[in-house]
Amino acid sequence: MNDEYYMKRAIELARKAVGHTSPNPLVGSVIVKNGKIIGEGYHAQFGGKHAEIVAIESATEPVEGATLYCNLEPCCHDIPEKKTPPCAPRLIREKIKRVVIANRDPNHHVNGQGIRMLRNAGIEVKTDVLAAKAALLNETYYKFIQSHQPFVHLKIAQSLDGRIATANGHSHWITNSTARKLVHQWRAEYDAVLVGTKTVLKDNPSLTVRDVPGRNPRRIVLDDQLVIPDQAHLISDELADKTILFTAKPESDARARQLRKRGVQVLQAPADDAGHLDIRVILQKLAEMEIASLLVEGGGEVFTSFVKQRIFDKISIFIAPMIIGAGVESIGSLGISSLSEALRLQKIRIEIIDGQALVQGYRNFTEIFTRNLKEN
Amino acid sequence: MNDEYYMKRAIELARKAVGHTSPNPLVGSVIVKNGKIIGEGYHAQFGGKHAEIVAIESATEPVEGATLYCNLEPCCHDIPEKKTPPCAPRLIREKIKRVVIANRDPNHHVNGQGIRMLRNAGIEVKTDVLAAKAALLNETYYKFIQSHQPFVHLKIAQSLDGRIATANGHSHWITNSTARKLVHQWRAEYDAVLVGTKTVLKDNPSLTVRDVPGRNPRRIVLDDQLVIPDQAHLISDELADKTILFTAKPESDARARQLRKRGVQVLQAPADDAGHLDIRVILQKLAEMEIASLLVEGGGEVFTSFVKQRIFDKISIFIAPMIIGAGVESIGSLGISSLSEALRLQKIRIEIIDGQALVQGYRNFTEIFTRNLKEN
Repeated sequence: MNDEYYMKRAIELARKAVGHTSPNPLVGSVIVKNGKIIGEGYHAQFGGKHAEIVAIESATEPVEGATLYCNLEPCCHDIPEKKTPPCAPRLIREKIKRVVIANRDPNHHVNGQGIRMLRNAGIEVKTDVLAAKAALLNETYYKFIQSHQPFVHLKIAQSLDGRIATANGHSHWITNSTARKLVHQWRAEYDAVLVGTKTVLKDNPSLTVRDVPGRNPRRIVLDDQLVIPDQAHLISDELADKTILFTAKPESDARARQLRKRGVQVLQAPADDAGHLDIRVILQKLAEMEIASLLVEGGGEVFTSFVKQRIFDKISIFIAPMIIGAGVESIGSLGISSLSEALRLQKIRIEIIDGQALVQGYRNFTEIFTRNLKEN
Repeated sequence: MNDEYYMKRAIELARKAVGHTSPNPLVGSVIVKNGKIIGEGYHAQFGGKHAEIVAIESATEPVEGATLYCNLEPCCHDIPEKKTPPCAPRLIREKIKRVVIANRDPNHHVNGQGIRMLRNAGIEVKTDVLAAKAALLNETYYKFIQSHQPFVHLKIAQSLDGRIATANGHSHWITNSTARKLVHQWRAEYDAVLVGTKTVLKDNPSLTVRDVPGRNPRRIVLDDQLVIPDQAHLISDELADKTILFTAKPESDARARQLRKRGVQVLQAPADDAGHLDIRVILQKLAEMEIASLLVEGGGEVFTSFVKQRIFDKISIFIAPMIIGAGVESIGSLGISSLSEALRLQKIRIEIIDGQALVQGYRNFTEIFTRNLKEN
């Protein structure tokens, strides 16, 4: 068993807390002594014990002289808002002999200082083991901790000819059940899901996690004129207090006050003359609410706004093998006239999901990862 | 070595004549005696010797008592327009002991009668070996021999959002060189390639086979008003006599006469008020010219006409991982309002070609093959 083997296990453990640690990262840890795993742990929820500490406390024999694997650099800082004591000093006290990590922690309070502290104490530290795999696991964390902006993931389900619905708005279902299950999985992982008000009026979505186990995300609607009807699931089901409406109407608006009585959050944001709410302002507000990751589920006008302003990090397009012809286009005018201006996605991944294509890519992969990630 | 092994070899041989046998099928043959291949052959070009005869004549020892493999049922008919004597009687005369075939010949002059003739002569005949694979090899033949209409294959190269060009017509290049090479391969296999006049005006394509070895196809332009300019490659290069223009202008039109002087064929076809030439009439004329397969390369209006009228057999869509936004759409209005009317492709195949997705499907797979093909 080599370092990669144990790191893979640490990543596997980290993943168990998907959806529960944000805005903290997913972290798993494994302690190995004499070729045997003697302790394991992961950061189970925001504010909870760090993975390294859980692993140490689960150890079935003394950890002195052992190797500790952890996908993220152990923390070393103690600042007032931090909920847990730093891990690096604990590893030193516990006389861990060797530490193997995948990624440096991009948090500027850590960012190599945890590694330095361990090395200064005589601990051997190996870095960049399965670094690329581990970084992707925490891509939303990477984005948020470095930019204080949520990681924005656009999810589009379309026909071969790029339509997300027929001309009269019919879109149930373009994707198959396997694709929808994957989307539910994403909802369980993302802090919030966002749709435009037209999607609410056409589809009346719940945006909940039903097809897989997992917790429900916050639900956000761009509704500049507050036209959402009383019977919309998003403001009438038992999760209405997880719904945030952004509107151009003043805080004091009568409809806004009505909606707040249901537990719905109604927040004001500026809009342009066409009634498009200012996405940058909205993302700033979401960041202040510690929403570190946002899954944008439609519709076409919303996708177009995000893409036109280049406000997205990742895009996933499910392409169903059907042709609709003129209808609702997935992405409208971006003001592009020459092909050289076309938005080329990075780190493309194409998968076949139950007879449909899933194309995924990043707007700017290096922007998210380069500062911290040696690829391997 | 089993029957599948030798049939695979026969198919491999058949493929060598790609682009040269139409409207005849691609046929390969292998003769095996005492576990050894003693003869091989394929139908090399239209009017040439049939594969079985080439195999027999190439045999390095007497074929009496041998097994003959052939992807298509040996022919048994002798009609005035046929260029070669029937094969089944020859196999009987040569005392072949066993015949293994992949597909019955859908030609109504044969269609099981070749098999019957062999069996009546005491030859053991095994059918349906690699039948699906072999039928796909001859999909254009299947279509043409049964319907007397060309097999129509739409080839679309588009962005993720279903655009084949930017708003001002810029489309070089959406696909990468690997995809373009594959398209050149198809050109070498298809009897003719078709484009609309707008594509000629925008791109001035040559529609020749350059990136792979192979023969050039006939080139067809839908040009209802004969606006093609003198300097267009299609009517000015050394292959101008391979170009056919369809127009709504009368045969006696002055521009038509000018163009004919270049060796270009100019044919009349009816058009509707919007200037859309009648595709059914055109395909009928192409069929009369023994054009059995047609690759349609654009642009958007042409694709839309073919799809709207359900005049296509296969569609191949190269999807490049870029986003263009409003631009030239690959497929326009089809008059579809409910998703249940969406055109769902059959026998979907999704491939990843050098970082781009290639989605292929059939309009009605069973219509082409069912009568003749037991799938296996």
